[in-house]
Amino acid sequence: MNAQLEQNLIQRLAVGDIIRRSALRAPGREALVEYRGDTRISYTYRELNQAVNKFTRALQGIGLRKGDRVAAVCLNSVEYIVAIFGLARGGYVMVPVNPGLNPADMGYILNHSEARALIVDDAFIPVLNKYLDKLPNIKNFFSLPVSGLAAVKPFISFPELLAGQSPEEVEDVIIGDRDILQIMYTSGTTAAPKGVMITNLSVYVAALHNIIFANINSRSIMSVVLPLFHCAQHSVLTSALLAGAGAVIMRGFEPGKYIAIWSREKINFMFALPVMYRALLDYPGIDEYDLSAFERCIYVMTPMDRRTLEDAGEKIGADKFVLATGQTEAYPSTNYFYPACYPGKEGNYWGVSNLTYETAVLDEQGNKLPRGRIGEIVWRGPGVMEGYYKDQEATEKSRKFGWHHSGDLGYFDEDGLLVFMDRKKDMIKTGGENVPSIKVERVLLNHPGIVSAAVVGLPHPHWVEAITAFVVAGEKGGGLAEGDVIAWCKQELGGFEVPKSVVFVKELPLTSTGKIKKHEIRSRYEHYYRE
Amino acid sequence: MNAQLEQNLIQRLAVGDIIRRSALRAPGREALVEYRGDTRISYTYRELNQAVNKFTRALQGIGLRKGDRVAAVCLNSVEYIVAIFGLARGGYVMVPVNPGLNPADMGYILNHSEARALIVDDAFIPVLNKYLDKLPNIKNFFSLPVSGLAAVKPFISFPELLAGQSPEEVEDVIIGDRDILQIMYTSGTTAAPKGVMITNLSVYVAALHNIIFANINSRSIMSVVLPLFHCAQHSVLTSALLAGAGAVIMRGFEPGKYIAIWSREKINFMFALPVMYRALLDYPGIDEYDLSAFERCIYVMTPMDRRTLEDAGEKIGADKFVLATGQTEAYPSTNYFYPACYPGKEGNYWGVSNLTYETAVLDEQGNKLPRGRIGEIVWRGPGVMEGYYKDQEATEKSRKFGWHHSGDLGYFDEDGLLVFMDRKKDMIKTGGENVPSIKVERVLLNHPGIVSAAVVGLPHPHWVEAITAFVVAGEKGGGLAEGDVIAWCKQELGGFEVPKSVVFVKELPLTSTGKIKKHEIRSRYEHYYRE
Repeated sequence: MNAQLEQNLIQRLAVGDIIRRSALRAPGREALVEYRGDTRISYTYRELNQAVNKFTRALQGIGLRKGDRVAAVCLNSVEYIVAIFGLARGGYVMVPVNPGLNPADMGYILNHSEARALIVDDAFIPVLNKYLDKLPNIKNFFSLPVSGLAAVKPFISFPELLAGQSPEEVEDVIIGDRDILQIMYTSGTTAAPKGVMITNLSVYVAALHNIIFANINSRSIMSVVLPLFHCAQHSVLTSALLAGAGAVIMRGFEPGKYIAIWSREKINFMFALPVMYRALLDYPGIDEYDLSAFERCIYVMTPMDRRTLEDAGEKIGADKFVLATGQTEAYPSTNYFYPACYPGKEGNYWGVSNLTYETAVLDEQGNKLPRGRIGEIVWRGPGVMEGYYKDQEATEKSRKFGWHHSGDLGYFDEDGLLVFMDRKKDMIKTGGENVPSIKVERVLLNHPGIVSAAVVGLPHPHWVEAITAFVVAGEKGGGLAEGDVIAWCKQELGGFEVPKSVVFVKELPLTSTGKIKKHEIRSRYEHYYRE
Repeated sequence: MNAQLEQNLIQRLAVGDIIRRSALRAPGREALVEYRGDTRISYTYRELNQAVNKFTRALQGIGLRKGDRVAAVCLNSVEYIVAIFGLARGGYVMVPVNPGLNPADMGYILNHSEARALIVDDAFIPVLNKYLDKLPNIKNFFSLPVSGLAAVKPFISFPELLAGQSPEEVEDVIIGDRDILQIMYTSGTTAAPKGVMITNLSVYVAALHNIIFANINSRSIMSVVLPLFHCAQHSVLTSALLAGAGAVIMRGFEPGKYIAIWSREKINFMFALPVMYRALLDYPGIDEYDLSAFERCIYVMTPMDRRTLEDAGEKIGADKFVLATGQTEAYPSTNYFYPACYPGKEGNYWGVSNLTYETAVLDEQGNKLPRGRIGEIVWRGPGVMEGYYKDQEATEKSRKFGWHHSGDLGYFDEDGLLVFMDRKKDMIKTGGENVPSIKVERVLLNHPGIVSAAVVGLPHPHWVEAITAFVVAGEKGGGLAEGDVIAWCKQELGGFEVPKSVVFVKELPLTSTGKIKKHEIRSRYEHYYRE
């Protein structure tokens, strides 16, 4: 063995070791639980570790080698988790793909990543089978038995794949901590998806600091409802399994089903979107349950509105709630915010940095901005990606002045807490002022007659960009007129923040992950003020 | 900037960033407190960060460069901590030296490390001044004002060094996570001291998992009584400062003084040797204090005897106690053990691995041994040293079969918990059996007439090695005879474990750090059974 390989082996910090390490500490503890129909599927750490070994050995047996990309088009399941850690253990590079993507994007990712193998939920076989001839690199197809459908050729089912494999430890793969663990493609709103290369070090260290900020421990029983193909849930699940916690796997969030499983499994740790907490609190009969059994509730993506926080505070406990943030390129979480510690603070607070990240706000020249000044949010830390796969230009654009650039605008408030303003490209420059599109959108969405809204800046001879609202009216907004909307905005916004025009539309253009394609609105209405 | 440097800067995990990162989270929180005479010296995180910047800038101004070794012969003080993190921030390699070493060992370390600068407590200036001509590499001398002595030439005092320096962030040093942070020399009992090269990654990651196993947090107020030139206290202090905790610095442990400061500073976190906890519990009038205010008590080096644990359990709370272990070569802590979780388990338990370490027990051929079988304790993890400085041979000997070899023997018990038996070289092979010297020593030390004891195996024609006890009798052991000692041992040990001979000595040979030089006893008495 050469010296570098030996060093890698001895000093290893590899995500594929996490399950074994937890199994060495507490082999009999329950790691995973999933309800499938009436069946309760469960894995202790020992069983999970053995399944992971079997999975890795099966792939080795087929001839896949360290560094080979393996794509996964899967919703949450225990088998998917076996695959995630089995790929990590074998040194394969996982390429998780959102099953909701359109065929063009999915095909792009599968081909761009040069995946040699593909893992899918059995339910997706019929759709994928149509496109197999467009995926020339993929030689091996595996299916997870989540819907009980038969695995038709060329797919090999998960039980068949593992049958006869030894559960003994895989000892022959040496992984360096900067070896790539996964390539996660971000859903591009303006261009082709970009493949974010994420190392073993990034994920392992993120798991450590997540354990710390959220106080995950071996008594935690965590629900997993967000999709594992996204960085946030992947990072939090990895944290839970490193801490030796239990994880209850669900394929999505439905409040009635959630509360039934919560009650049976004594779940005490929730990780979800604010809207899911809202739905849980509004669920009929929820008052019969003692939700104070929750020890920690993490929420992500957006701030929690005051009403939900107050309700949650009453029923669950305000001090249990914490917002976490991050992005695929800066492995979550980068920052966190306990709202109960700051009762006076409203808005999109991201709070303080996690223990291995450093956050700054820079101006265009790379100078650190003092408190109160808006600039681009930038990060340093071991969770920052290695780069975009096969895209040196985009990688170079993402790093300047020795920082990873988030593409987000924000500022530190008077107490040094980070506040998110808007995506940089969505900030509107109007009459010499900067107006965050999401600030105006939030006001619009508070109107009872508006169900969705997008605010963009459109080219204008006088204003440079004119704030323009695109609004979908709901049932309560039958007779809603432009003047009503503008009057509503004037009550809540400064004069320069009020839209110059309101355009009523039937629907807004969305990406397959549900983000509004603002660039599409901007380009379609480019000449709106010049016609 | 080249691509690798830029990557290092953006993905940085550098110990020199820790104070700044904590200062960004909570600038006004008190980081350090020390009582010097009647004066209470304190640093908030902001102040500490500024002092660290000044220190780094001063060294840069003198012309010291990243990678230069800087030795420190210091006991604990706030200024020493400023230096520790100032060296880290500048990318200097700290070489901490035990002030208690004899001049020969100290000179060896200062020369072998090629240190270019030296930091000492002012009290040590008179002694060191005698040897300056034997330290040709050292060009810069700094003294810390801990005793109020004047800094005579060539020493520059700490306040003079920092005067006029800017507290602005040092931005121009780029540190890779595998850059060497410090070289700590282990006190060799058989050979010259060996310089353990420890990376930034090792210490930063150890701090993260220490925070987790001991639940260090920003409300912790930790006493620092063990010397910072040892890895254990350095690692735990770094953990505390990363967690944003407060640290109360002491130059040693004296129970009366400790309890006075404890009470004034509301210390709730103790890190000490078992004998210190014993002394605290035995302190006259201790029952007037509510020791249950402690939230966590870590002990190191040796197991806590049952009586102390029971007393401590009553007065402090049994569940607060945790043993931590590790070694300079495998940055502490590698393993931990909460005795209250295992009421039936006696002996030298090291427990389970920390979250970034993996522990195994190997036979001589490198096979993993099952539970119950004794072999060498080995570790993998990012805390394992880069190697011994300028000693490739010793480095290679320390790693075999892809593991770092601890030099310790032990086994996993029936529950998978690690038990330490003895240093490998101190295990006695007698009549086909292996007997840990420390097992016999523990029995001897329980005898009221014995104050210290060393047990070694000496060459013997029949037994191969004959267990031989070297005993220092105390006042109560005035008339103690060999037969008494052997009879005592027979009550507690198996027949093959009982010493064949007992040698009464006035004192045992000790290293400057207080370890018994067993090799010296062995070589002096080599022919004992052949004379």
